Amino acid sequence: MEYRRQGSQLFVRLERGEDVHTSLTELARREGIQGGFVTALGAVSDAELGYYDLERRDYERRRLEKEVEIGSASGTLSLLEGKPHVHLHAVLSDRECRVFAGHLFSAKAAATVEMMVHVSDGPIERTPDEETGLNLWRV
Amino acid sequence: MEYRRQGSQLFVRLERGEDVHTSLTELARREGIQGGFVTALGAVSDAELGYYDLERRDYERRRLEKEVEIGSASGTLSLLEGKPHVHLHAVLSDRECRVFAGHLFSAKAAATVEMMVHVSDGPIERTPDEETGLNLWRV
Amino acid sequence: MEYRRQGSQLFVRLERGEDVHTSLTELARREGIQGGFVTALGAVSDAELGYYDLERRDYERRRLEKEVEIGSASGTLSLLEGKPHVHLHAVLSDRECRVFAGHLFSAKAAATVEMMVHVSDGPIERTPDEETGLNLWRV
Repeated sequence: MEYRRQGSQLFVRLERGEDVHTSLTELARREGIQGGFVTALGAVSDAELGYYDLERRDYERRRLEKEVEIGSASGTLSLLEGKPHVHLHAVLSDRECRVFAGHLFSAKAAATVEMMVHVSDGPIERTPDEETGLNLWRV
Repeated sequence: MEYRRQGSQLFVRLERGEDVHTSLTELARREGIQGGFVTALGAVSDAELGYYDLERRDYERRRLEKEVEIGSASGTLSLLEGKPHVHLHAVLSDRECRVFAGHLFSAKAAATVEMMVHVSDGPIERTPDEETGLNLWRV
Repeated sequence: MEYRRQGSQLFVRLERGEDVHTSLTELARREGIQGGFVTALGAVSDAELGYYDLERRDYERRRLEKEVEIGSASGTLSLLEGKPHVHLHAVLSDRECRVFAGHLFSAKAAATVEMMVHVSDGPIERTPDEETGLNLWRV
């Protein structure tokens, strides 16, 4: 991971093989980021996507075996129980430009991943929500 | 809707059931936002997507009955006839990670919607354009 | 192309028929932008998408003949051999809200294209990478 910070903005690039969530968590730790918004593009492998079923209060999961382009991805940074937390959604496309999208559980940078992060001034906590069964972003 | 403003940036979260366009219009009104750019993720229900047919000068509309994830969404804020106006496009995905996208007419927050807004210093008007039949963003 | 700059942020709109990459390159030249991040929505024609095959070290290309909505698009600005360079990925959707995505080689604004650009303080070079065969964004 390489990055450049200017005030509340960071430009970030991941190297081939780096895990997207782990890298962003590490970035948050190193830079003391307690909340923020992420936008990304590039290509990834071993992506696992999810669809949250509100009735079951659980995710349907779908693993993509092949390498895929990130058509678009965005997410948020926050603190969950005091630790940096990464929440990402992604739109991924294969060799035929077919598209799969949803909550992104995990993915590894393939050729490269380019990101921009906008940092919040103070902490944004993520805390449990009774109604949805999710930890929600308390801006 | 909860939000945190820091200068020209806002971090926003919608509660289950809140209408996306209505919430952003209300946010613009409360915060005196006269122009800006929006990025979003989360999940929505009752989404209506559109494809603009330049020849017919009208939209093809498609309603998604089920709850869908927002793989990615972006849009612009402006003033139309002096009032806050919201223009959004979205990439939505279902339980099988199948994807639908286009102009987003309307949608209600399902589990949650997380957004970032970048505000313009002055007003950005949206005014009618003869050639396309649309109200265009006059930055 | 019309745009409004406020510090390191630009709000940009393309006119019908303008080439997306050419316009952003021209914007970078006029405004002295040496690095940055782009987010976009709107509609385009003559889009060519790509999927990078790491083994072959070349792109699979796919041309979309019809006009399509930009469900979401993002990209980066940089300097390649000292000249402004534009790297874009896009998620595009047709009349039936069917979606195609990937690296965006080229596209022309159809009804309109609305963009936001975040500019880096200093230059971000793009230089050759042995392992992937690509020019990577050296933040």
